[in-house]
Amino acid sequence: MKPVPFKIKDQESSLRLAEWARNISPSALQEMLTEASRPGIISFALGLPAPEFFPAAAFAQIAGQVLAADARTLQYSPHLQPLKRQVCELMKQRGVECFEEQVFLTAGAQQGMSLLARLLLEDGGKVITEKFIYLGFQQALEPFRPEILTVETNPETGMDVEAVESLLRSGHRPAFIYSITDGHNPLSVNLHPAKRERLVELAKAYQVPIIEDDAYGFLNYSEAMSPPLRALDDRWVFYVGSFSKILAPALRAGWMIVPPELIEPLSIVKESADIDTATFTQRLINAYLESGQFPAHLANLCAHYNIRRETMASALEAFFPAEARWNVPESGFFFWVELPAKISPDRLFKIAIEREQVAFIPGNAFSVRGAGNQTQSIRLNFSNSTPERIEEGIARLAKVLKESIRL
Amino acid sequence: MKPVPFKIKDQESSLRLAEWARNISPSALQEMLTEASRPGIISFALGLPAPEFFPAAAFAQIAGQVLAADARTLQYSPHLQPLKRQVCELMKQRGVECFEEQVFLTAGAQQGMSLLARLLLEDGGKVITEKFIYLGFQQALEPFRPEILTVETNPETGMDVEAVESLLRSGHRPAFIYSITDGHNPLSVNLHPAKRERLVELAKAYQVPIIEDDAYGFLNYSEAMSPPLRALDDRWVFYVGSFSKILAPALRAGWMIVPPELIEPLSIVKESADIDTATFTQRLINAYLESGQFPAHLANLCAHYNIRRETMASALEAFFPAEARWNVPESGFFFWVELPAKISPDRLFKIAIEREQVAFIPGNAFSVRGAGNQTQSIRLNFSNSTPERIEEGIARLAKVLKESIRL
Repeated sequence: MKPVPFKIKDQESSLRLAEWARNISPSALQEMLTEASRPGIISFALGLPAPEFFPAAAFAQIAGQVLAADARTLQYSPHLQPLKRQVCELMKQRGVECFEEQVFLTAGAQQGMSLLARLLLEDGGKVITEKFIYLGFQQALEPFRPEILTVETNPETGMDVEAVESLLRSGHRPAFIYSITDGHNPLSVNLHPAKRERLVELAKAYQVPIIEDDAYGFLNYSEAMSPPLRALDDRWVFYVGSFSKILAPALRAGWMIVPPELIEPLSIVKESADIDTATFTQRLINAYLESGQFPAHLANLCAHYNIRRETMASALEAFFPAEARWNVPESGFFFWVELPAKISPDRLFKIAIEREQVAFIPGNAFSVRGAGNQTQSIRLNFSNSTPERIEEGIARLAKVLKESIRL
Repeated sequence: MKPVPFKIKDQESSLRLAEWARNISPSALQEMLTEASRPGIISFALGLPAPEFFPAAAFAQIAGQVLAADARTLQYSPHLQPLKRQVCELMKQRGVECFEEQVFLTAGAQQGMSLLARLLLEDGGKVITEKFIYLGFQQALEPFRPEILTVETNPETGMDVEAVESLLRSGHRPAFIYSITDGHNPLSVNLHPAKRERLVELAKAYQVPIIEDDAYGFLNYSEAMSPPLRALDDRWVFYVGSFSKILAPALRAGWMIVPPELIEPLSIVKESADIDTATFTQRLINAYLESGQFPAHLANLCAHYNIRRETMASALEAFFPAEARWNVPESGFFFWVELPAKISPDRLFKIAIEREQVAFIPGNAFSVRGAGNQTQSIRLNFSNSTPERIEEGIARLAKVLKESIRL
C-alpha cells in the first residue's frame, strides 16, 4: 500500500491523514479570527463577548480562595457535584426543571456537541439542520461525513418545523435534529412558541432526539421569553449550555442536560477525549455562582448588550440603504442583514476591511456544506464593540455598501 | 427502520447510540477512581501526582496577576505563542531541539492522543502497540474499531522492536506505532537506547509515524537518561507531552511536538472538539514558567518521588514473598510486580481492598482489548502516598499475598 499524499497549502506531504481529513480546511471563523483581530479594525465578525464585562476581579479573588482551600482543586477528580447543583439553579432561570443526575459538565458547549455527535452519529448517518447554522456544529459533524437534510428558516418564526415533519413522515430517521432555539447563530431569530411545541412533539413521536444549542439563550432583551425546548420534554431534548457567553470563554466550561442513562456513555467518550473536566476552573465557576454575584452580573451584562443591540438597530436604520432588510434580535449577539440583490457579500467583505477597516461575516460562511445554499445576508456582531464603535462601524460599512450599489 | 435499543446497566432504552458505542463500558481506571477514593484506603491504584507538591500558592498569586494584567486572559484567543516558546525551552531538558512552529497546545496529553487518532486513523485501520498500555490510549482508539497489532515488552529493555520490524516487513502499514518510551505506564520500563534508534529507523524506512507518549518522561530518577524518540527524528515522531504530572492535572494542559504541516489539520480537529485551549490556565502556566520557579519545582518533585520510589522498593524487598518479581523503575510513577503463579490478581484486589484497605490495579486492566493477553502482574503507584503509607500499605498487601499463597 503506497502512502496517499495529502496537500496542505499546496505542499505535498508523505504523512498520511485519515481519508475524511484529507480535504479539511480552516473554518471561516478561524480565518476571520486572524483578519478581524488586526489592530484598528472595527470588528462585527466574531461572536466574542465583551472582555470589559468579564468578572476578572471576582475571579482573581476566588482563584486565591479555591487554591488555598483544597489541594484537590488542582488534582484529577470526578465531576464537581456542587457545580451540577448550581447548573440546575441556573436552568430555573430558563424555565427548566432538571436534576443533578441529568447534568453533564463539559469543556464548553462545543465539546458537548462534539461528544453527542460522536455518541449518536454513525459514519454517513443522517442529521436534520437548518440551512445556515453555527459553524462549530458543522465541524463536529464533519468526521462522520453525514447526510445533512436541511430545512428553511423563517426570519420571524425560525426553523421550518413543517419541513422537519415531512422529512420524518417520508421515512428519514436522523440521529438527531439540531435546534438553535434562541438567539440563533447566525440567523438571530428566536423559535416561535407554537413551533417549539410542534418540534418537541415530532421528536417524541418519531423518537428522534433534538440537540438544543442554547449558547445564547441566557442573553435575552425581551420581556416575554419562551423557555427552551428542554422545558417541554426531558427525554428527547438534549440541552447544551455554555458559560462562555455569560461568564468567560477562556474558562472552557459548559454543561448538558440529558437523560440520566446518557451520562455514563458521555463520561466514557469524554474520558477518551480529555480524561476529565478542568477541576480548577470548575471550582472557580462554582465558587463564583455560590457567592451569589451571578444574577447581578447577568443583569448587568444583558443591560449593556441591550444598549449595544439598540445602538446597532438605530445605526442600521440611520445609515443602511432602504433596500437592506433585517430584524432586531430578541436574544443573542447578532444581526442578520440581507443586502440588496446586486451586492456580493464576499466582495463587500474585502472592500470593507481594506477601505474602511470594518469586518463582518458573509452569511454564506454559515451555509451547510454541500447543501449549495446561497444567501445575500451578512452576520453582524454587536456584543464585542462599544456603542461608539458600533455607530462608527455601521456608518463606515453603510458608506461602502452605498458605493457598491452605485457601481 | 426500528430504533436499535442499547443497554446501560441492564436498562433498555429507546435512545439509539452509534453502533461502536453500544457496548462501551467504563474503564477500570474510572471504576477504580471511585473504589480507591473511599476514605481510609491506602491507594496504589491510580496515576495521581501528589497534591501536596502542587504549586498552589504560586498559582494563586499568578492567577491574580494574569487576570489583572489583561482582559484577554478570559477571552477566546489563538494559541498562546509565549507558552509555545516555554515548551521549546522545556523540551531542551529532554534533549529535544524544537521550534514554536512544531508546538501544538492541548487540553492535556489525552487530548493530544485523541486528536492524533482522529486525524490519522481510518475506521478499522491498523495500529501497532505493546500488549499492555495506557488505558486512555486504548479509549482514544476505540471509536475507530482498529485492528491492533501487538508486540511483547521485555521487562528490562522495553518494546520488542524486532517484532515491530517483522510486522512492517510482512506488509502491515499501520496508521501509527504507539510508544511509551520512558516511565512506561503500566510496565514501568524505559526503552533501551539501541531500541530507540532502531524503532525510529523503522518509522523512517516504512514511513509510519510513531506517537510518543511522554507523560512521565520528565520524572526520572536516574543519572543517565536517554532522550526520547523525538530527539532522533523530527518528522516521523509525534511527541505528546503533559503538564499534568509536572505541574497539576486539573489545569488540563499539555502539548505536542509535530511536523509543522500537521499544525493546521490539528487546529481544525481541535476546534471541532472544543474550539480552543483554555487561555486562562495557559496564561497561568506560561506566567509560572516565565517566573523561573519551574526548575526548582521539578527538582523538588523528582527528589520527593525518588524517596517514595525507594521506599516502595525497600518495602517490596522487605515484605513481599520471594516468588514475586519486579524491577525498580528509573522514571515515572509505577512498579509492575509479577505475582507468584498461583495468585489471581483480581481476587487479590478484592481481598486487599476489603480486609486491608489497600488498592492497586490488576495488570490485566491494561491489556489491549481483544488481544487476549493475560498477566500475573499488578501495577503499584508510588507517587500519591507518603513514604509512611507506602511502607504500611506494602506490608499490608504482602500480608494478604502471603495468606493467598498458603491457601
